[in-house]
Amino acid sequence: MSGFVSLVGAGPGDPELLTVKAVRRLAEADLVLYDALVDGQVLRHARRAHCFFVGKRSGAPGVRQETIHRMLVGGARLGKRVVRLKCGDPFVLGRGGEEAIALAAAGVPHEVIPGVSSALAAPALAGIPLTHRGLASGFAVLSGHAEESWRPILEAVSPGSLSLVVLMGLRARAEIARALLERGWPPGTPSALLLAASTPDAASWIGPLAELGAAPVPEACRAAPATMVIGPVVALAGETGLAAPAQDVEWRVA
Amino acid sequence: MSGFVSLVGAGPGDPELLTVKAVRRLAEADLVLYDALVDGQVLRHARRAHCFFVGKRSGAPGVRQETIHRMLVGGARLGKRVVRLKCGDPFVLGRGGEEAIALAAAGVPHEVIPGVSSALAAPALAGIPLTHRGLASGFAVLSGHAEESWRPILEAVSPGSLSLVVLMGLRARAEIARALLERGWPPGTPSALLLAASTPDAASWIGPLAELGAAPVPEACRAAPATMVIGPVVALAGETGLAAPAQDVEWRVA
Repeated sequence: MSGFVSLVGAGPGDPELLTVKAVRRLAEADLVLYDALVDGQVLRHARRAHCFFVGKRSGAPGVRQETIHRMLVGGARLGKRVVRLKCGDPFVLGRGGEEAIALAAAGVPHEVIPGVSSALAAPALAGIPLTHRGLASGFAVLSGHAEESWRPILEAVSPGSLSLVVLMGLRARAEIARALLERGWPPGTPSALLLAASTPDAASWIGPLAELGAAPVPEACRAAPATMVIGPVVALAGETGLAAPAQDVEWRVA
Repeated sequence: MSGFVSLVGAGPGDPELLTVKAVRRLAEADLVLYDALVDGQVLRHARRAHCFFVGKRSGAPGVRQETIHRMLVGGARLGKRVVRLKCGDPFVLGRGGEEAIALAAAGVPHEVIPGVSSALAAPALAGIPLTHRGLASGFAVLSGHAEESWRPILEAVSPGSLSLVVLMGLRARAEIARALLERGWPPGTPSALLLAASTPDAASWIGPLAELGAAPVPEACRAAPATMVIGPVVALAGETGLAAPAQDVEWRVA
């Protein structure tokens, strides 16, 4: 049997937010390469597979992207069914495109299985619809990881025209909030900082954009995946009645 | 037992792109209210439920949103476990926010279960990563259904700054393409029109923005869900090696 690589989205964290197809591919897999934020429960589906962690651990260098490419290609060439399990959706801010291109260049058969992205799931679970009649008919998703990524996008979007979703922006939240204020977003724009969405550690802060930069982060969430949402739709969190888990409520400020 | 409403994302079309949690809620449901684009296979999970179609049929008026709210509230008050099954993700361009607000106002316990949005899945399945190093570090999602929704957003976003994803824009594709060209997007910007993504009827057209407005639509896809993608990342479809289904290939023009 010839090898095959599936680039699979693992969803935002909750193992039940995996797709049926992702579960099936994990159950059939011989080899699984997974990232830091994948829940251990998810890997239980991979009953017969060798599972390798290839994400970044704090304080240690991560596995190089080229090494991941070699492991994927090498596994498939040995006839293995390989699952590359990536948080959220494999093609959203996750270098899944680079992996697909490397597999295509190596002539390895592969597929992509979309997943639930935390860009959409984190706001939904906090009761924030990214679009809503009269408030926003679209949204933008960007990475807050590197300034050269987020600054040109914030400059390219007129204030208030879209709901903004910033992934991986926890560390840069003060600079991002300042850039938005300088760009002309009103200081009172409702904003949310959503941490570890869909997991038992989920916590959320909601308040005005002017205070987003100083939003406190619970100790337990310093390394959790973070989603920021900025725009009038955030105010709907108080109206949609989607109760936050208990540990969440104390931290809500608005 | 008291009633409960789950606002559930059904994913882009492929029944296997339902989440595990969505399948579980369907299996437990007493009552399911579903929309036009939900695959019949999906409803097979709802073994014990009464299933009602509340979407729009061509040529007939759809069920009014207020009526859907009344059915959700009424079902829950009768003690039923109600699933409101919505295409894609319930909180992306789907009026899920309005339904959550109506449920909260009526004091009905409810939850949201995020789904795989076709905004992300359709491009991924066509081999288009919405973000890619050096090409795009973010993307915007908007509705092409009504001009008063899409025009202000296209005017608010600088040409080329983000990948653009337009849902429900099939009918207005010529106006949308013209608006982008007038706004300064280069005529050669790679563009895709993706129809019925993740289903056996999937078809895709890829070509320059200048030709998007006149992109032909196969007869079988006139009523299919459509996703347009505009931006340099579309050119990667040729490099990611994610083979289109057979009926898809003929129609590909680039």
